Amino acid sequence: MTSHKSPLVPSAFHDMFNAQNIAVIGASENPSKLGFRIVQNLITQKKVVFPVNPHVSTTQVYPSVKDVPEKVDLAVIIVPPSVILEIIDECAIKGIRCVAIITEGFRETGPEGAELQEKLKQKLQQYDIRAIGPNTMGFHDVFTSFSICFLDVSDLQPGKVSISSQTGVLAGAFLKYINLSEHIGVNKVIDLGNMIDLDHADVLEFLLTDEKTQVIALHMEGLGDGPHFSRTLAQVTPHKPVIIVKGGVMPETRRVVESHTGSLVGDSLLFEKILKQAGALQVANFEEFVNLIKGFCFMPPPKGNKVALISGSGGTAVITIDALLKNGLHLAQFSENTLQQLKKFIPEHGKIQNPVDIWPAGVTFGLPQIYAETISILDQDPNVDVIITLLFRIRDFQYDPTPIIEAAKHCLKPIFFATMGHIVFEMRNELERNGFPTYTYGSQIARVLGSMWQYQQFCQKT
Amino acid sequence: MTSHKSPLVPSAFHDMFNAQNIAVIGASENPSKLGFRIVQNLITQKKVVFPVNPHVSTTQVYPSVKDVPEKVDLAVIIVPPSVILEIIDECAIKGIRCVAIITEGFRETGPEGAELQEKLKQKLQQYDIRAIGPNTMGFHDVFTSFSICFLDVSDLQPGKVSISSQTGVLAGAFLKYINLSEHIGVNKVIDLGNMIDLDHADVLEFLLTDEKTQVIALHMEGLGDGPHFSRTLAQVTPHKPVIIVKGGVMPETRRVVESHTGSLVGDSLLFEKILKQAGALQVANFEEFVNLIKGFCFMPPPKGNKVALISGSGGTAVITIDALLKNGLHLAQFSENTLQQLKKFIPEHGKIQNPVDIWPAGVTFGLPQIYAETISILDQDPNVDVIITLLFRIRDFQYDPTPIIEAAKHCLKPIFFATMGHIVFEMRNELERNGFPTYTYGSQIARVLGSMWQYQQFCQKT
Repeated sequence: MTSHKSPLVPSAFHDMFNAQNIAVIGASENPSKLGFRIVQNLITQKKVVFPVNPHVSTTQVYPSVKDVPEKVDLAVIIVPPSVILEIIDECAIKGIRCVAIITEGFRETGPEGAELQEKLKQKLQQYDIRAIGPNTMGFHDVFTSFSICFLDVSDLQPGKVSISSQTGVLAGAFLKYINLSEHIGVNKVIDLGNMIDLDHADVLEFLLTDEKTQVIALHMEGLGDGPHFSRTLAQVTPHKPVIIVKGGVMPETRRVVESHTGSLVGDSLLFEKILKQAGALQVANFEEFVNLIKGFCFMPPPKGNKVALISGSGGTAVITIDALLKNGLHLAQFSENTLQQLKKFIPEHGKIQNPVDIWPAGVTFGLPQIYAETISILDQDPNVDVIITLLFRIRDFQYDPTPIIEAAKHCLKPIFFATMGHIVFEMRNELERNGFPTYTYGSQIARVLGSMWQYQQFCQKT
Repeated sequence: MTSHKSPLVPSAFHDMFNAQNIAVIGASENPSKLGFRIVQNLITQKKVVFPVNPHVSTTQVYPSVKDVPEKVDLAVIIVPPSVILEIIDECAIKGIRCVAIITEGFRETGPEGAELQEKLKQKLQQYDIRAIGPNTMGFHDVFTSFSICFLDVSDLQPGKVSISSQTGVLAGAFLKYINLSEHIGVNKVIDLGNMIDLDHADVLEFLLTDEKTQVIALHMEGLGDGPHFSRTLAQVTPHKPVIIVKGGVMPETRRVVESHTGSLVGDSLLFEKILKQAGALQVANFEEFVNLIKGFCFMPPPKGNKVALISGSGGTAVITIDALLKNGLHLAQFSENTLQQLKKFIPEHGKIQNPVDIWPAGVTFGLPQIYAETISILDQDPNVDVIITLLFRIRDFQYDPTPIIEAAKHCLKPIFFATMGHIVFEMRNELERNGFPTYTYGSQIARVLGSMWQYQQFCQKT
């Protein structure tokens, strides 16, 4: 799959993400076509763009990439599959080393497409051209605003996580969702498509050395070059957490995966084992994917597995504790000093213990003040590794969360929040805008913390 | 626990929910006290209220419940635990048959409280007074707006599910959350507290015959009268689905449960087995609790386990299919007629199959039209039992979801939606306001459908 690798050649992704002169082969003058949108997006990004289309003859458009007067760093190809092979020939003549093949209609469509993909692969290897795709939405870099995707990503916020996928949704609805609803900023985004050349291992190599990337999240269908993947993964995980969601874990899903990216599903138990050994964190679905990305982007992993839980509801606390225990965490035993300090405002029958029930004191002295005070006290306790706060705010007991946010800002330990209610929607936004990972349910935090603690233990061993 | 039961006595809950004359023992003139709020709430509900407080002497307040001039159907008791026994004596003298003991400070506080609770229990049995609590927030009926809770529940929407819990949050933040954010209307709500008398089995007996309740959801910590519970549960489940979340499934959580409601945790494997045999549906946490309640409130269970999946993203579809398979569901094999009809608008390379990828046709002919057309075609297919639609809407591809909602309204089969993105938040609201259960991720629907299908199979067998 990736036979023409050399340690002396800098990562192809590095070249692609730093391309200045870009040819769009299959550019269009029709605003409803993707070839039009891509060109427009590139122009707004202040890139040097050379639109190529043999059927359009205006002064701005070149009939062939061979006619482009300057050096081309990257060709974005969106032409029918029937002409792809000759387009690659022209790219080779022009001396282009990197291509992004947006075009669909290859291995994902059946035997005929698979045959064409094989021919394309041989041609790319013969010319030593590095390629992303085919059947990809491309990539974008939120920090530099560079995007070869047809979507407008100018409203995405930059963040710590780089995401690579084998599906286009990650370039679209998913990214907008995590950015706007989950407040997770993103760094680089890559859709690998059918992985004719560049695959998950190449992504990992690139992101390991990318200083702006602190968390790596991969959506996988096929493995690509398996041994290369496991080797690279083991090199990356001691430095950056790698979160992986894999489609096609059930053998019956094979047909659907094949018609999506043409990937081989592989043995999912073996896959799980490889990931675990290499210290990567596999999640079951996009829900857990997003929750765990948020955890790592917002907080460092806890140094130990002793949790302090603050809650205003016994029943919710109990179910959160069940989930914490299931995920390898435990309730901290508070120090004598902590108990003494909590006694100052928690009434006798308020049962001073872990979980801390702030409800009686909160109703008397004000919920935000008591939440804040409790957070500050627990942060000082040497027996506590991480704090979880279950916040409740309803119409009858409204309050301004500022004291809670201020107390959390001074915390030296990782702190997580769960909030409930439409009325607390704004509070959740405010907590996350201030850098605190906030979920709806304590059980979600328990799963996230379980993985972060697993990662912490892995790092301590390596 | 519930030794004074007789089949000839109508359910105590029936009497409580139909009480007209209510005494509030421990009423207060101080607006910050719960005893004040409860009285005020009852007055706005047009109930006949008799506030009782020996320390307040105004014409509207009675020094003892014995002084109330009319018959009292229900006494709501919110006095210090130290005087609870004499208050019950006075209730007995007054001939009161039903009490709701809001007061805290019993078994949940330790041995001393447990002793007091035992004395209280004996007294209640001696007088044949039925009681809810102690340590309860009471109950409310959203249809009749009758509430003995100190919270203002006037903004709750009526719905199909009645919820009983052993925790007060269900009366507060949780209810507001599911009502406003998840669009789940609620019917009756009961907080059982420490279950000195009325317990989960009594709730089930009451809700079985309550015509307005179509779905029953229980939050449990202790079992109450175990054999009575299993017997009653088995009687209820063939008529109404019963969804159960239990706190304290891990033995280590025992201490916390004891200090919350003083319940015995019990063997969680045995509990699981009892529920399964009786056809109840146990979920692991509040997240799954809410998701499953929504499924049953919005849709009937599917008649079979063959799913038609509509999606605009291959990768998301694949992970949804993995989750469906894990939960006992399968992809339907479309009929020849369905394939012929889909061919009319899905282009050749669009791979007509299940899952249906509407993206290429949607971009050409309009996303809502293609989603709607596809829903209508799949609803006609005899091989399809249930339809799942994964909706995507982003800034670049905005649309009005009305055609989708109209098509879903004409569906004869259960239909579920997942929507992604801040921009689709309004669409999700609109779908749910129109009666369609909508989630964020397909994997959530898979878990919900797995339980609904399990229930359907149970009903077919009984």
